[in-house]
Amino acid sequence: MKYGFSKRVRYLKSSAVRDILKVVNKGDVISFAGGLPDENLFPVDAIRRAFDQALTSDRKNLQYGETEGVMELRERLASRMATKGIHRSPDDILVTSGSQQAIDLFSRIMFNRGDVILTENPTYLAALQVFESYEANIIAVDSDDDGMLEEDLEDKIVRLKPKCIYVVPTYSNPGGKVWSLERRKKLLELADKYHVVIFEDDPYGEIQFDENESPPSIASMDNNRLVLYTSTFSKTVVPAMRIGWIVGPHQIIRLMAQAKQASDLHTNSISQHALIHLLKDFDFDGHITTLRKTYLERMNMMKSLLDSVEGNQIKYQIPKGGMFLWVNMPEHVNTTELLSTAVDRGVAFVPGAPFYVSNPQQNTMRLNFTNAEPEKIKLGMERLVTVINESQYEFIT
Amino acid sequence: MKYGFSKRVRYLKSSAVRDILKVVNKGDVISFAGGLPDENLFPVDAIRRAFDQALTSDRKNLQYGETEGVMELRERLASRMATKGIHRSPDDILVTSGSQQAIDLFSRIMFNRGDVILTENPTYLAALQVFESYEANIIAVDSDDDGMLEEDLEDKIVRLKPKCIYVVPTYSNPGGKVWSLERRKKLLELADKYHVVIFEDDPYGEIQFDENESPPSIASMDNNRLVLYTSTFSKTVVPAMRIGWIVGPHQIIRLMAQAKQASDLHTNSISQHALIHLLKDFDFDGHITTLRKTYLERMNMMKSLLDSVEGNQIKYQIPKGGMFLWVNMPEHVNTTELLSTAVDRGVAFVPGAPFYVSNPQQNTMRLNFTNAEPEKIKLGMERLVTVINESQYEFIT
Repeated sequence: MKYGFSKRVRYLKSSAVRDILKVVNKGDVISFAGGLPDENLFPVDAIRRAFDQALTSDRKNLQYGETEGVMELRERLASRMATKGIHRSPDDILVTSGSQQAIDLFSRIMFNRGDVILTENPTYLAALQVFESYEANIIAVDSDDDGMLEEDLEDKIVRLKPKCIYVVPTYSNPGGKVWSLERRKKLLELADKYHVVIFEDDPYGEIQFDENESPPSIASMDNNRLVLYTSTFSKTVVPAMRIGWIVGPHQIIRLMAQAKQASDLHTNSISQHALIHLLKDFDFDGHITTLRKTYLERMNMMKSLLDSVEGNQIKYQIPKGGMFLWVNMPEHVNTTELLSTAVDRGVAFVPGAPFYVSNPQQNTMRLNFTNAEPEKIKLGMERLVTVINESQYEFIT
Repeated sequence: MKYGFSKRVRYLKSSAVRDILKVVNKGDVISFAGGLPDENLFPVDAIRRAFDQALTSDRKNLQYGETEGVMELRERLASRMATKGIHRSPDDILVTSGSQQAIDLFSRIMFNRGDVILTENPTYLAALQVFESYEANIIAVDSDDDGMLEEDLEDKIVRLKPKCIYVVPTYSNPGGKVWSLERRKKLLELADKYHVVIFEDDPYGEIQFDENESPPSIASMDNNRLVLYTSTFSKTVVPAMRIGWIVGPHQIIRLMAQAKQASDLHTNSISQHALIHLLKDFDFDGHITTLRKTYLERMNMMKSLLDSVEGNQIKYQIPKGGMFLWVNMPEHVNTTELLSTAVDRGVAFVPGAPFYVSNPQQNTMRLNFTNAEPEKIKLGMERLVTVINESQYEFIT
């Protein structure tokens, strides 16, 4: 039988990254492709205890729950965010099935077909997919290493009247960069001047390598109810739990909760209760310190091996946190073509092109340094450096 | 600041049932309003063991998982459905965050604004909300106690060219009725003749009071890839887990998986792995037998107390399973108005009107018999019968 689908399905694409991951997970390919934390660092014993506590407490916790999320979890999230300068009531928080769902629900209540959303370029691929699925018009703003460029941002706000500006300002995916304090303030100032909502996506903020180096979140500087801020426990606890949250202006959060009710009633509350116990009884901040230290070591190892590439042709910025190293190869290199050679040699990365809204740079790649243990990073990077060196000879000969 | 939302938000409404529940959960009101299983029957010890096993097995289970769902769970679901006559491959199954999400994802890939969907009248409220949020045109088909009426169904298929027919044929919510075998076959025959997809929502199928009395699911009779079938563990294990699934034509399931990827990446996989252990090590069918027996007793108690209403003015059909007793009061009674009196007297129900697509019957109410224990049912029904009797006197005087 032939089925008739909605027009929406034209915009639904399987993620290029996930398709590559499917291939890569076979055999002994060392993958720097995914955006995965290291499962060997998962605090499994603490998680087990937390679930056991969640399941021995009140049976009512296992009933249908509130769409907004378990109140005690929202209270703990509010306290935790307050220590980072975001002062909001638990009523302004919605617990979501990962921060991906926060992006989806926000888009659902915000975008009509053709509405403009401004983004960085490149930016988080799966957010682009969501915006596209709601037929939003995604426009890239020119940026440098410090964030969006003021002039282009203001010009595009004035000309295109965007409904929202989507940013990943802290250890971005894929770029691994951090917006400067000035650029954050400037973004907020312009958004305020022209009444545009900012969506600040912060999945990596906790993975910071130098405590003194990262500017405050944009949400923490927001006095005018402009900023939606979302984060997740996928990188600091485990992805399988699918717990994220979003905080922002009450009117927006309330509509997102109504959309969530239609979408899946509420987020898994066994996991929500387990998380409450974990935040209460487990040294969560100590765990984060371990993650930071371990991932910093791995980043440094990856970086120093990358430096062994011959010539001076590759460029990268040293990440101050997060999970990714973003590499610019010589202009003639097409990393999508390079990938199949690399996979043959037993190493994988993600080509950078799919992360671009416009003007894809074919010579870029994203390397994840968190998932593989040091010896694997060493072996994988040796393979990758060989592939890169050879690609340069090919050009020279 | 004033925010600009999508047109979609006009169609997002908070559920009337949930709003009532919020009021009712205060004080000592005995509530027959919700659609909740009894938490005292939750197999908590088995669930705890299952989660503990899930969390002591492979750490990779705690990483990001497949959007389609954990393969072993899909295999177990396929085997379980095969025992009920639904023979499909695990690749034709999508694990969802409750069956609510299956309804939402299906709608997302199916409906353009104005597309027609045919439903029963009354039908599941939260499904109507989803269809409305995608701006579908919901049209009710005339039905009697055995299901949709052939003549009206065919007429509406021919005239309105619906994209889908949504049905809850087994112990429906709110009506508590069961479609006859003939009507199921007739629906399938017409859907096949005119190439319309059937969405069979079956959250209550396992709660059957007489094993020999319920006809097979419509999906089990489908040879032509017309039927999407969804069910859930919310009623048989616990709602908090948010695990449902949908099975159907591969092309539709594949597009729903892409929509799910944009929506929340994948369903909580700790719960999926716990469910695998539960299905493997726990006497799940024995547990279902206990639920059936207990809920049948409660239904009988509620029914016999309902029979003590004076006069012969209320009508109901004895449920053959599920969770609800659907009551028709005398025509002059408005149950929405009656509700506030009832709550004052310490008992709550859901007025039937919101469940209607068109021609709401103001004299109907839905009573849930699964959540309250026998002594509460007795006390609550005594209160309700008093309220009903008084409402009749009011009419007479």
